[in-house]
Amino acid sequence: MQGEDVERQRPTHAHELERDWMHTSIEVRTRGRGMHEVTSDVRAAVRSSGVREGLCVVFLRHTSASLVVQENADPSARRDLERFFDRLAPDGDPVYEHDAEGPDDMPAHIRAAVTRTSETFIVTGGDLLLGTWQGVFLFEHRHAPHRRRLDLRVIAEA
Amino acid sequence: MQGEDVERQRPTHAHELERDWMHTSIEVRTRGRGMHEVTSDVRAAVRSSGVREGLCVVFLRHTSASLVVQENADPSARRDLERFFDRLAPDGDPVYEHDAEGPDDMPAHIRAAVTRTSETFIVTGGDLLLGTWQGVFLFEHRHAPHRRRLDLRVIAEA
Amino acid sequence: MQGEDVERQRPTHAHELERDWMHTSIEVRTRGRGMHEVTSDVRAAVRSSGVREGLCVVFLRHTSASLVVQENADPSARRDLERFFDRLAPDGDPVYEHDAEGPDDMPAHIRAAVTRTSETFIVTGGDLLLGTWQGVFLFEHRHAPHRRRLDLRVIAEA
Repeated sequence: MQGEDVERQRPTHAHELERDWMHTSIEVRTRGRGMHEVTSDVRAAVRSSGVREGLCVVFLRHTSASLVVQENADPSARRDLERFFDRLAPDGDPVYEHDAEGPDDMPAHIRAAVTRTSETFIVTGGDLLLGTWQGVFLFEHRHAPHRRRLDLRVIAEA
Repeated sequence: MQGEDVERQRPTHAHELERDWMHTSIEVRTRGRGMHEVTSDVRAAVRSSGVREGLCVVFLRHTSASLVVQENADPSARRDLERFFDRLAPDGDPVYEHDAEGPDDMPAHIRAAVTRTSETFIVTGGDLLLGTWQGVFLFEHRHAPHRRRLDLRVIAEA
Repeated sequence: MQGEDVERQRPTHAHELERDWMHTSIEVRTRGRGMHEVTSDVRAAVRSSGVREGLCVVFLRHTSASLVVQENADPSARRDLERFFDRLAPDGDPVYEHDAEGPDDMPAHIRAAVTRTSETFIVTGGDLLLGTWQGVFLFEHRHAPHRRRLDLRVIAEA
Protein backbone atom coordinates (compact mmCIF):
# COMPACT_ATOMS: atom_id res chain seq x y z
CA MET A 1 0.00 0.00 0.00
CA GLN A 2 2.61 2.49 1.08
CA GLY A 3 5.44 0.58 -0.57
CA GLU A 4 5.75 3.04 -3.40
CA ASP A 5 6.13 5.93 -1.00
CA VAL A 6 8.98 4.44 0.95
CA GLU A 7 12.60 4.22 -0.10
CA ARG A 8 15.17 2.23 1.80
CA GLN A 9 18.81 3.20 1.94
CA ARG A 10 21.42 0.48 1.42
CA PRO A 11 22.19 -0.46 5.01
CA THR A 12 25.62 -0.40 6.64
CA HIS A 13 26.38 -3.64 8.44
CA ALA A 14 29.13 -4.27 10.94
CA HIS A 15 29.65 -7.88 11.86
CA GLU A 16 32.35 -8.31 14.38
CA LEU A 17 33.36 -11.04 16.73
CA GLU A 18 30.52 -10.72 19.15
CA ARG A 19 28.66 -7.67 18.06
CA ASP A 20 26.55 -6.55 15.31
CA TRP A 21 24.90 -3.36 14.35
CA MET A 22 23.17 -1.84 11.39
CA HIS A 23 22.34 1.66 10.31
CA THR A 24 19.81 2.38 7.64
CA SER A 25 17.38 5.06 6.74
CA ILE A 26 13.91 5.01 5.29
CA GLU A 27 12.63 7.85 3.18
CA VAL A 28 8.90 8.40 3.37
CA ARG A 29 7.08 10.60 0.88
CA THR A 30 4.12 11.91 2.79
CA ARG A 31 0.91 13.06 1.12
CA GLY A 32 0.39 15.90 3.58
CA ARG A 33 -0.86 16.05 7.15
CA GLY A 34 -1.66 12.72 8.73
CA MET A 35 -0.25 9.47 10.02
CA HIS A 36 1.75 7.20 7.73
CA GLU A 37 2.32 3.70 9.03
CA VAL A 38 5.94 2.53 8.78
CA THR A 39 5.69 -0.63 10.93
CA SER A 40 6.43 -3.05 8.11
CA ASP A 41 9.38 -0.95 6.94
CA VAL A 42 10.94 -0.79 10.40
CA ARG A 43 10.24 -4.50 10.85
CA ALA A 44 11.87 -5.36 7.51
CA ALA A 45 14.97 -3.37 8.45
CA VAL A 46 15.27 -5.16 11.79
CA ARG A 47 14.89 -8.57 10.15
CA SER A 48 17.46 -7.78 7.48
CA SER A 49 19.97 -6.64 10.13
CA GLY A 50 20.46 -10.19 11.33
CA VAL A 51 20.36 -8.95 14.92
CA ARG A 52 18.55 -11.45 17.17
CA GLU A 53 18.53 -9.66 20.52
CA GLY A 54 19.07 -5.96 20.96
CA LEU A 55 17.59 -2.53 20.51
CA CYS A 56 16.28 -0.56 17.56
CA VAL A 57 16.36 3.23 17.79
CA VAL A 58 14.26 5.16 15.29
CA PHE A 59 15.21 8.83 15.00
CA LEU A 60 13.44 11.43 12.90
CA ARG A 61 15.54 14.33 11.57
CA HIS A 62 12.66 16.79 11.35
CA THR A 63 10.89 19.31 13.58
CA SER A 64 7.57 19.46 11.74
CA ALA A 65 6.90 15.74 11.67
CA SER A 66 7.16 13.23 14.50
CA LEU A 67 6.77 9.62 15.61
CA VAL A 68 3.93 7.92 17.45
CA VAL A 69 3.20 4.33 18.40
CA GLN A 70 -0.54 3.86 18.08
CA GLU A 71 -3.44 1.54 17.48
CA ASN A 72 -3.14 0.28 13.91
CA ALA A 73 -6.28 -1.82 13.55
CA ASP A 74 -8.95 0.82 13.14
CA PRO A 75 -8.32 3.84 10.86
CA SER A 76 -10.92 5.84 12.83
CA ALA A 77 -8.47 6.04 15.75
CA ARG A 78 -5.99 7.78 13.42
CA ARG A 79 -8.62 10.20 12.16
CA ASP A 80 -9.64 11.04 15.73
CA LEU A 81 -6.03 11.61 16.75
CA GLU A 82 -5.67 14.04 13.86
CA ARG A 83 -8.85 15.84 14.95
CA PHE A 84 -7.53 16.06 18.49
CA PHE A 85 -4.32 17.73 17.32
CA ASP A 86 -6.27 20.05 15.00
CA ARG A 87 -8.08 21.31 18.06
CA LEU A 88 -5.02 21.33 20.35
CA ALA A 89 -2.86 23.34 17.98
CA PRO A 90 -5.09 24.92 15.32
CA ASP A 91 -3.66 26.30 12.09
CA GLY A 92 -3.39 30.06 11.89
CA ASP A 93 -3.86 30.66 15.63
CA PRO A 94 -3.38 34.44 16.09
CA VAL A 95 -1.14 33.75 19.12
CA TYR A 96 1.68 32.49 16.85
CA GLU A 97 4.52 34.76 15.75
CA HIS A 98 6.33 32.04 13.79
CA ASP A 99 4.40 31.69 10.50
CA ALA A 100 7.05 32.20 7.83
CA GLU A 101 6.11 28.93 6.17
CA GLY A 102 2.36 29.41 6.53
CA PRO A 103 -0.46 28.86 9.03
CA ASP A 104 0.57 25.19 9.58
CA ASP A 105 4.21 26.04 10.39
CA MET A 106 4.00 26.58 14.16
CA PRO A 107 1.25 23.98 14.76
CA ALA A 108 3.65 21.45 13.19
CA HIS A 109 6.39 22.26 15.72
CA ILE A 110 3.92 22.05 18.61
CA ARG A 111 2.62 18.64 17.53
CA ALA A 112 6.19 17.41 17.23
CA ALA A 113 7.04 18.71 20.72
CA VAL A 114 4.22 16.74 22.38
CA THR A 115 4.78 13.52 20.44
CA ARG A 116 8.26 12.06 19.73
CA THR A 117 11.48 12.57 17.82
CA SER A 118 13.00 9.20 18.74
CA GLU A 119 11.54 5.90 19.84
CA THR A 120 13.47 2.95 21.26
CA PHE A 121 12.21 -0.54 20.54
CA ILE A 122 13.29 -3.91 21.89
CA VAL A 123 14.47 -6.49 19.34
CA THR A 124 13.85 -10.10 20.34
CA GLY A 125 14.01 -13.30 18.31
CA GLY A 126 15.22 -11.23 15.35
CA ASP A 127 12.04 -9.14 15.27
CA LEU A 128 10.59 -5.94 16.71
CA LEU A 129 8.73 -6.42 19.99
CA LEU A 130 5.31 -4.80 19.57
CA GLY A 131 1.87 -5.34 21.07
CA THR A 132 -0.80 -6.92 18.88
CA TRP A 133 -2.43 -3.59 18.04
CA GLN A 134 0.64 -1.38 18.02
CA GLY A 135 1.85 0.27 14.85
CA VAL A 136 4.72 2.71 14.31
CA PHE A 137 3.67 5.89 12.54
CA LEU A 138 5.39 8.84 10.97
CA PHE A 139 3.12 11.75 11.79
CA GLU A 140 3.31 14.43 9.09
CA HIS A 141 2.23 17.79 10.46
CA ARG A 142 2.48 19.95 7.33
CA HIS A 143 -0.28 20.10 4.72
CA ALA A 144 2.07 19.88 1.75
CA PRO A 145 3.62 16.52 0.83
CA HIS A 146 7.17 16.16 2.16
CA ARG A 147 10.10 13.76 1.95
CA ARG A 148 10.90 12.63 5.47
CA ARG A 149 13.90 10.62 6.61
CA LEU A 150 13.75 8.07 9.40
CA ASP A 151 17.13 6.88 10.69
CA LEU A 152 17.25 3.38 12.13
CA ARG A 153 20.02 2.03 14.27
CA VAL A 154 19.83 -1.61 15.27
CA ILE A 155 22.32 -2.77 17.89
CA ALA A 156 22.91 -6.32 19.06
CA GLU A 157 23.53 -7.47 22.56
CA ALA A 158 24.90 -10.84 21.71
CA MET B 1 1.43 -1.63 48.63
CA GLN B 2 1.31 -2.45 44.96
CA GLY B 3 3.26 -5.69 45.38
CA GLU B 4 0.24 -7.88 45.00
CA ASP B 5 -0.68 -6.27 41.69
CA VAL B 6 2.66 -6.87 40.02
CA GLU B 7 3.94 -10.13 38.63
CA ARG B 8 7.47 -10.60 37.47
CA GLN B 9 8.41 -12.93 34.65
CA ARG B 10 11.39 -15.24 35.17
CA PRO B 11 14.13 -13.21 33.48
CA THR B 12 16.34 -14.38 30.65
CA HIS B 13 20.00 -13.73 31.39
CA ALA B 14 22.87 -13.84 28.94
CA HIS B 15 26.29 -13.71 30.51
CA GLU B 16 28.98 -13.71 27.97
CA LEU B 17 32.64 -12.86 28.04
CA GLU B 18 32.29 -9.15 28.41
CA ARG B 19 28.64 -8.50 27.98
CA ASP B 20 25.54 -8.97 29.80
CA TRP B 21 21.92 -8.37 29.14
CA MET B 22 18.62 -9.27 30.64
CA HIS B 23 15.08 -9.31 29.39
CA THR B 24 12.17 -9.51 31.74
CA SER B 25 8.60 -8.38 31.84
CA ILE B 26 6.42 -7.08 34.62
CA GLU B 27 2.70 -7.62 34.59
CA VAL B 28 0.73 -4.89 36.32
CA ARG B 29 -2.93 -5.38 37.20
CA THR B 30 -4.36 -1.89 37.12
CA ARG B 31 -7.44 -0.87 39.09
CA GLY B 32 -8.69 1.42 36.35
CA ARG B 33 -7.69 4.89 35.20
CA GLY B 34 -4.78 6.42 37.02
CA MET B 35 -1.06 6.25 37.65
CA HIS B 36 0.50 3.10 39.09
CA GLU B 37 4.03 3.48 40.37
CA VAL B 38 6.43 0.79 39.14
CA THR B 39 9.73 2.36 40.24
CA SER B 40 10.59 -0.33 42.77
CA ASP B 41 9.75 -3.08 40.28
CA VAL B 42 11.94 -1.61 37.55
CA ARG B 43 14.68 -0.99 40.12
CA ALA B 44 14.49 -4.59 41.39
CA ALA B 45 14.78 -5.91 37.84
CA VAL B 46 17.85 -3.77 37.16
CA ARG B 47 19.53 -4.89 40.39
CA SER B 48 18.80 -8.55 39.70
CA SER B 49 20.28 -8.24 36.20
CA GLY B 50 23.79 -7.91 37.61
CA VAL B 51 24.47 -5.14 35.08
CA ARG B 52 26.63 -2.41 36.64
CA GLU B 53 26.82 0.14 33.82
CA GLY B 54 24.44 0.30 30.92
CA LEU B 55 20.95 1.16 29.79
CA CYS B 56 17.48 0.00 30.73
CA VAL B 57 14.73 0.31 28.14
CA VAL B 58 11.16 0.01 29.35
CA PHE B 59 8.65 -0.66 26.58
CA LEU B 60 4.89 -0.86 26.99
CA ARG B 61 2.99 -3.11 24.56
CA HIS B 62 -0.27 -1.19 24.76
CA THR B 63 -1.94 1.77 23.05
CA SER B 64 -4.41 2.69 25.81
CA ALA B 65 -1.88 2.90 28.63
CA SER B 66 1.48 4.67 28.69
CA LEU B 67 4.58 5.56 30.68
CA VAL B 68 5.47 8.76 32.52
CA VAL B 69 8.33 9.76 34.79
CA GLN B 70 6.88 12.05 37.43
CA GLU B 71 7.09 13.47 40.91
CA ASN B 72 6.51 10.58 43.31
CA ALA B 73 6.55 12.35 46.67
CA ASP B 74 3.14 14.01 46.73
CA PRO B 75 0.06 12.06 45.56
CA SER B 76 -1.71 15.37 44.81
CA ALA B 77 0.59 15.84 41.79
CA ARG B 78 -0.74 12.56 40.39
CA ARG B 79 -4.33 13.54 40.99
CA ASP B 80 -3.75 16.88 39.25
CA LEU B 81 -2.12 15.19 36.29
CA GLU B 82 -5.16 12.96 35.94
CA ARG B 83 -7.44 16.01 36.11
CA PHE B 84 -5.35 17.72 33.43
CA PHE B 85 -5.76 14.77 31.08
CA ASP B 86 -9.48 14.52 31.86
CA ARG B 87 -9.83 18.06 30.59
CA LEU B 88 -7.40 17.64 27.66
CA ALA B 89 -9.08 14.53 26.28
CA PRO B 90 -12.53 14.18 27.89
CA ASP B 91 -14.45 10.92 27.76
CA GLY B 92 -17.30 10.78 25.28
CA ASP B 93 -16.22 13.85 23.31
CA PRO B 94 -18.68 14.06 20.37
CA VAL B 95 -15.74 14.72 18.00
CA TYR B 96 -14.58 11.07 18.31
CA GLU B 97 -15.54 8.44 15.75
CA HIS B 98 -13.59 5.66 17.43
CA ASP B 99 -15.70 4.55 20.40
CA ALA B 100 -16.18 0.82 19.83
CA GLU B 101 -14.88 0.07 23.32
CA GLY B 102 -16.75 2.92 25.01
CA PRO B 103 -16.41 6.64 25.75
CA ASP B 104 -12.89 6.15 27.26
CA ASP B 105 -11.54 4.31 24.19
CA MET B 106 -10.28 7.24 22.09
CA PRO B 107 -9.24 9.42 25.07
CA ALA B 108 -6.98 6.52 26.08
CA HIS B 109 -5.20 6.54 22.70
CA ILE B 110 -4.79 10.33 22.83
CA ARG B 111 -3.27 10.25 26.33
CA ALA B 112 -0.88 7.53 25.21
CA ALA B 113 0.15 9.58 22.14
CA VAL B 114 1.16 12.61 24.22
CA THR B 115 2.97 10.64 26.93
CA ARG B 116 5.32 7.68 26.20
CA THR B 117 5.45 4.13 24.94
CA SER B 118 9.13 3.60 25.78
CA GLU B 119 11.52 5.21 28.21
CA THR B 120 15.28 4.79 28.27
CA PHE B 121 17.07 4.93 31.62
CA ILE B 122 20.75 5.02 32.49
CA VAL B 123 22.06 2.22 34.74
CA THR B 124 25.00 3.19 36.92
CA GLY B 125 26.55 1.43 39.90
CA GLY B 126 24.13 -1.45 39.35
CA ASP B 127 21.09 0.75 39.87
CA LEU B 128 18.68 2.96 37.94
CA LEU B 129 19.74 6.61 37.71
CA LEU B 130 16.79 8.71 38.85
CA GLY B 131 16.38 12.11 40.45
CA THR B 132 15.37 12.26 44.11
CA TRP B 133 11.71 12.91 43.34
CA GLN B 134 11.39 10.93 40.14
CA GLY B 135 9.17 7.88 39.95
CA VAL B 136 8.33 5.66 36.97
CA PHE B 137 4.61 5.24 36.41
CA LEU B 138 2.39 3.06 34.31
CA PHE B 139 -0.47 5.36 33.34
CA GLU B 140 -3.69 3.39 32.85
CA HIS B 141 -6.09 5.31 30.62
CA ARG B 142 -9.11 2.94 30.65
CA HIS B 143 -11.65 2.93 33.47
CA ALA B 144 -11.86 -0.86 33.71
CA PRO B 145 -9.00 -2.74 35.42
CA HIS B 146 -6.53 -4.21 32.93
CA ARG B 147 -3.50 -6.49 32.87
CA ARG B 148 -0.64 -4.51 31.39
CA ARG B 149 2.76 -5.82 30.38
CA LEU B 150 5.94 -3.81 30.71
CA ASP B 151 8.96 -5.23 28.87
CA LEU B 152 12.36 -4.43 30.34
CA ARG B 153 15.63 -4.83 28.54
CA VAL B 154 18.81 -4.15 30.50
CA ILE B 155 22.02 -3.98 28.48
CA ALA B 156 25.53 -3.73 29.85
CA GLU B 157 28.32 -1.63 28.48
CA ALA B 158 31.11 -3.37 30.30
CA MET C 1 26.40 32.60 24.60
CA GLN C 2 25.20 30.12 27.13
CA GLY C 3 28.71 28.90 27.91
CA GLU C 4 28.83 30.58 31.26
CA ASP C 5 25.64 28.85 32.37
CA VAL C 6 26.80 25.35 31.63
CA GLU C 7 29.19 23.25 33.67
CA ARG C 8 30.57 19.98 32.49
CA GLN C 9 31.45 17.16 34.84
CA ARG C 10 34.76 15.38 34.32
CA PRO C 11 33.64 12.42 32.23
CA THR C 12 34.16 8.76 33.09
CA HIS C 13 35.64 6.84 30.17
CA ALA C 14 35.84 3.11 29.78
CA HIS C 15 38.00 1.92 26.94
CA GLU C 16 38.05 -1.77 26.65
CA LEU C 17 39.04 -4.18 23.96
CA GLU C 18 36.11 -3.61 21.69
CA ARG C 19 33.85 -1.34 23.61
CA ASP C 20 33.72 2.11 24.73
CA TRP C 21 31.37 4.17 26.75
CA MET C 22 31.30 7.48 28.50
CA HIS C 23 29.19 8.98 31.19
CA THR C 24 29.14 12.66 31.84
CA SER C 25 26.75 15.24 33.13
CA ILE C 26 26.08 18.81 32.19
CA GLU C 27 24.81 21.29 34.72
CA VAL C 28 22.67 24.04 33.27
CA ARG C 29 21.81 27.15 35.29
CA THR C 30 18.48 28.25 33.90
CA ARG C 31 17.24 31.84 34.08
CA GLY C 32 13.65 30.80 34.67
CA ARG C 33 10.91 29.47 32.42
CA GLY C 34 11.90 28.89 28.84
CA MET C 35 13.98 26.81 26.47
CA HIS C 36 17.76 26.65 26.88
CA GLU C 37 19.64 25.20 23.94
CA VAL C 38 22.19 22.53 24.89
CA THR C 39 22.97 21.17 21.41
CA SER C 40 26.60 22.30 21.39
CA ASP C 41 27.16 20.90 24.89
CA VAL C 42 25.74 17.50 24.01
CA ARG C 43 27.68 17.54 20.76
CA ALA C 44 30.94 18.41 22.54
CA ALA C 45 30.41 15.54 24.99
CA VAL C 46 29.82 13.07 22.16
CA ARG C 47 32.93 14.24 20.31
CA SER C 48 35.08 14.04 23.42
CA SER C 49 33.88 10.49 24.11
CA GLY C 50 35.82 9.14 21.16
CA VAL C 51 32.84 6.98 20.23
CA ARG C 52 32.45 6.78 16.44
CA GLU C 53 29.26 4.73 16.08
CA GLY C 54 26.70 4.24 18.80
CA LEU C 55 23.98 5.84 20.84
CA CYS C 56 23.78 8.83 23.13
CA VAL C 57 21.10 8.81 25.82
CA VAL C 58 20.31 12.12 27.49
CA PHE C 59 18.41 11.77 30.76
CA LEU C 60 17.08 14.62 32.87
CA ARG C 61 16.80 14.00 36.64
CA HIS C 62 13.98 16.48 37.19
CA THR C 63 10.18 16.52 37.10
CA SER C 64 9.67 20.25 36.59
CA ALA C 65 11.95 20.62 33.57
CA SER C 66 12.12 18.47 30.46
CA LEU C 67 13.75 17.85 27.09
CA VAL C 68 12.57 18.75 23.60
CA VAL C 69 14.14 18.52 20.17
CA GLN C 70 12.98 21.56 18.23
CA GLU C 71 13.61 24.04 15.47
CA ASN C 72 16.70 26.04 16.45
CA ALA C 73 16.93 28.55 13.64
CA ASP C 74 14.18 31.01 14.53
CA PRO C 75 13.73 32.13 18.16
CA SER C 76 10.07 32.96 17.43
CA ALA C 77 9.32 29.21 17.29
CA ARG C 78 10.59 28.90 20.87
CA ARG C 79 8.51 31.85 22.03
CA ASP C 80 5.40 30.37 20.39
CA LEU C 81 6.03 27.00 22.00
CA GLU C 82 6.22 28.70 25.38
CA ARG C 83 2.95 30.52 24.66
CA PHE C 84 1.33 27.25 23.67
CA PHE C 85 2.30 25.63 26.98
CA ASP C 86 1.21 28.73 28.92
CA ARG C 87 -2.25 28.22 27.50
CA LEU C 88 -2.23 24.42 27.78
CA ALA C 89 -1.26 24.39 31.46
CA PRO C 90 -1.76 27.88 32.87
CA ASP C 91 -0.18 28.94 36.17
CA GLY C 92 -2.51 29.06 39.14
CA ASP C 93 -5.29 27.04 37.51
CA PRO C 94 -7.93 26.56 40.26
CA VAL C 95 -8.22 22.88 39.30
CA TYR C 96 -4.77 22.12 40.82
CA GLU C 97 -4.40 20.78 44.36
CA HIS C 98 -0.62 20.53 44.18
CA ASP C 99 0.67 24.09 44.64
CA ALA C 100 3.04 23.82 47.62
CA GLU C 101 5.82 25.45 45.60
CA GLY C 102 3.61 28.08 44.00
CA PRO C 103 1.28 28.58 41.04
CA ASP C 104 3.91 27.28 38.58
CA ASP C 105 4.48 24.00 40.49
CA MET C 106 1.83 21.78 38.92
CA PRO C 107 2.02 23.35 35.42
CA ALA C 108 5.72 22.40 35.48
CA HIS C 109 4.92 18.72 36.10
CA ILE C 110 2.28 18.73 33.36
CA ARG C 111 4.65 20.26 30.79
CA ALA C 112 7.26 17.66 31.70
CA ALA C 113 4.70 14.83 31.33
CA VAL C 114 3.83 15.81 27.75
CA THR C 115 7.41 16.47 26.61
CA ARG C 116 10.36 14.19 27.51
CA THR C 117 12.56 13.00 30.35
CA SER C 118 14.99 11.08 28.14
CA GLU C 119 15.96 11.31 24.51
CA THR C 120 17.99 8.77 22.56
CA PHE C 121 20.23 10.01 19.77
CA ILE C 122 22.22 8.16 17.13
CA VAL C 123 25.98 8.76 17.06
CA THR C 124 27.58 8.40 13.64
CA GLY C 125 31.01 9.42 12.38
CA GLY C 126 31.86 10.51 15.92
CA ASP C 127 29.08 13.08 16.02
CA LEU C 128 25.43 13.44 16.95
CA LEU C 129 23.00 12.73 14.10
CA LEU C 130 20.62 15.69 13.90
CA GLY C 131 18.59 17.32 11.15
CA THR C 132 19.73 20.69 9.83
CA TRP C 133 17.24 22.63 11.92
CA GLN C 134 17.11 20.41 14.98
CA GLY C 135 18.37 21.62 18.32
CA VAL C 136 18.30 19.90 21.71
CA PHE C 137 16.69 22.01 24.43
CA LEU C 138 16.38 21.86 28.17
CA PHE C 139 12.91 23.21 28.84
CA GLU C 140 12.74 24.94 32.23
CA HIS C 141 9.17 25.07 33.49
CA ARG C 142 9.63 27.00 36.74
CA HIS C 143 9.84 30.79 36.85
CA ALA C 144 12.77 30.90 39.27
CA PRO C 145 16.27 30.13 37.99
CA HIS C 146 17.32 26.54 38.75
CA ARG C 147 20.38 24.32 38.48
CA ARG C 148 19.44 21.39 36.26
CA ARG C 149 21.49 18.27 35.64
CA LEU C 150 21.54 16.46 32.32
CA ASP C 151 23.10 12.99 32.38
CA LEU C 152 24.70 11.79 29.15
CA ARG C 153 25.60 8.23 28.40
CA VAL C 154 27.42 7.54 25.15
CA ILE C 155 27.78 3.89 24.18
CA ALA C 156 29.78 2.50 21.29
CA GLU C 157 28.76 -0.28 19.01
CA ALA C 158 32.18 -1.05 17.62
